[in-house]
Amino acid sequence: MRISEKIQQADWQKEKHVPVIDCPDKVTAGDFVKVTVSLGKAVAHPNTTEHHIRWIACFFSPDDDKYTYELGRFEFNAHGEAAAGANQGPVYTNHEVTFAFKTTKPGTLSAVALCNIHGLWESEKALSLA
Amino acid sequence: MRISEKIQQADWQKEKHVPVIDCPDKVTAGDFVKVTVSLGKAVAHPNTTEHHIRWIACFFSPDDDKYTYELGRFEFNAHGEAAAGANQGPVYTNHEVTFAFKTTKPGTLSAVALCNIHGLWESEKALSLA
Amino acid sequence: MRISEKIQQADWQKEKHVPVIDCPDKVTAGDFVKVTVSLGKAVAHPNTTEHHIRWIACFFSPDDDKYTYELGRFEFNAHGEAAAGANQGPVYTNHEVTFAFKTTKPGTLSAVALCNIHGLWESEKALSLA
Amino acid sequence: MRISEKIQQADWQKEKHVPVIDCPDKVTAGDFVKVTVSLGKAVAHPNTTEHHIRWIACFFSPDDDKYTYELGRFEFNAHGEAAAGANQGPVYTNHEVTFAFKTTKPGTLSAVALCNIHGLWESEKALSLA
Repeated sequence: MRISEKIQQADWQKEKHVPVIDCPDKVTAGDFVKVTVSLGKAVAHPNTTEHHIRWIACFFSPDDDKYTYELGRFEFNAHGEAAAGANQGPVYTNHEVTFAFKTTKPGTLSAVALCNIHGLWESEKALSLA
Repeated sequence: MRISEKIQQADWQKEKHVPVIDCPDKVTAGDFVKVTVSLGKAVAHPNTTEHHIRWIACFFSPDDDKYTYELGRFEFNAHGEAAAGANQGPVYTNHEVTFAFKTTKPGTLSAVALCNIHGLWESEKALSLA
Repeated sequence: MRISEKIQQADWQKEKHVPVIDCPDKVTAGDFVKVTVSLGKAVAHPNTTEHHIRWIACFFSPDDDKYTYELGRFEFNAHGEAAAGANQGPVYTNHEVTFAFKTTKPGTLSAVALCNIHGLWESEKALSLA
Repeated sequence: MRISEKIQQADWQKEKHVPVIDCPDKVTAGDFVKVTVSLGKAVAHPNTTEHHIRWIACFFSPDDDKYTYELGRFEFNAHGEAAAGANQGPVYTNHEVTFAFKTTKPGTLSAVALCNIHGLWESEKALSLA
């Protein structure tokens, strides 16, 4: 089975693993646009030493392009780890990120999230040029 | 020479490589707080295929703790790469990120940025508990 | 178009972007096994400031498991960058990695590579237990 | 306290967190050289869901250069995570990596490892040209 078949999709309003992409539907070519990607907007995802979201990666696939470009990969690395034991540590990072990118072409913005237990999940959003 | 001696510091108002940390000075223990880290707030840093900021990593060092915890590492991966040549591509990611974390202890938040040409740069900010 | 449809496959003997996985076909449950993943074994891939392989990520999908697990992600970050200009720098990292993992189940080992210009490419290898 | 002061050093024969760099002392300018970085060569480090090495990053600092270059960052992402509970999962990645790089200058190769509980640790090795 190809790894691409392991990248799961679902309705984020029912499934807590699906990344939610928040950004304008129309962007101005060459202007930086802010994008927020988060999980658990409708159904919260755990954030514990044993079970958490490790990262969210974002890609942009221009409509007229055969290839995709990785915009960024954002790791969430603190989940209560401590010498005293799991979930006894002082810090936790949330599974949410805001970044900015610019494009000269319309296309599809994709987000892929990794849960350390439940694998890969993706979502996407079409962006047109204003 | 130790790698730690290669992590440079400077005044961000004069040096474009220094990460700028924006977040409250006082945080409530156990509440998620948003943190924005950016570069070039006073002096712009290039963002080209040949010269760009590759990532910003953030750490939290509790005051009473010997160790530091990595909160996250945020990669900026698109810099105009294209088959047609450098800086002909459709997408660029900016060197700026907003994320959220929570802490139960006061301490120091550190940001480290990597320029693909000019190496490692750090800055820091003390956080107290409200 | 889903991001998973953007992950390309091809014959590595003809296409330079395809990761080649070298490891035993049969492994002993619970014993660490070395895995080498490389690109360009038959047809060399460029390694320049403008065009290079950014990373290879490896996943393991147990046969009886709905999910996949990320084993590792291996970044190749030096590509001749320099203040003097592209490809004038002193160091280059090759797109090849050897790591070790252990499994208690048979399954499929997948490798995904990112070219900064030509996007995502995958390959896979079935592992049975000895 | 600067993050650089949080990067710990010790004798790898006594302290399990210190990365051990294995590669030739002399390299030929412009030829790829294999480098293996591992932890726990003398004293084993745990590899559990709750306590493990997250990554090893390698840098090269040419002797005549003010800056350092990141050669690679190698993540170890599977540590027995499972829906059934910590350490019930099928896969573990070991904290060891082999990669290859080339340099045209003598300098210092540095390795930095992150333990999810005990923070940052570094070691280094001088490389001369043959």
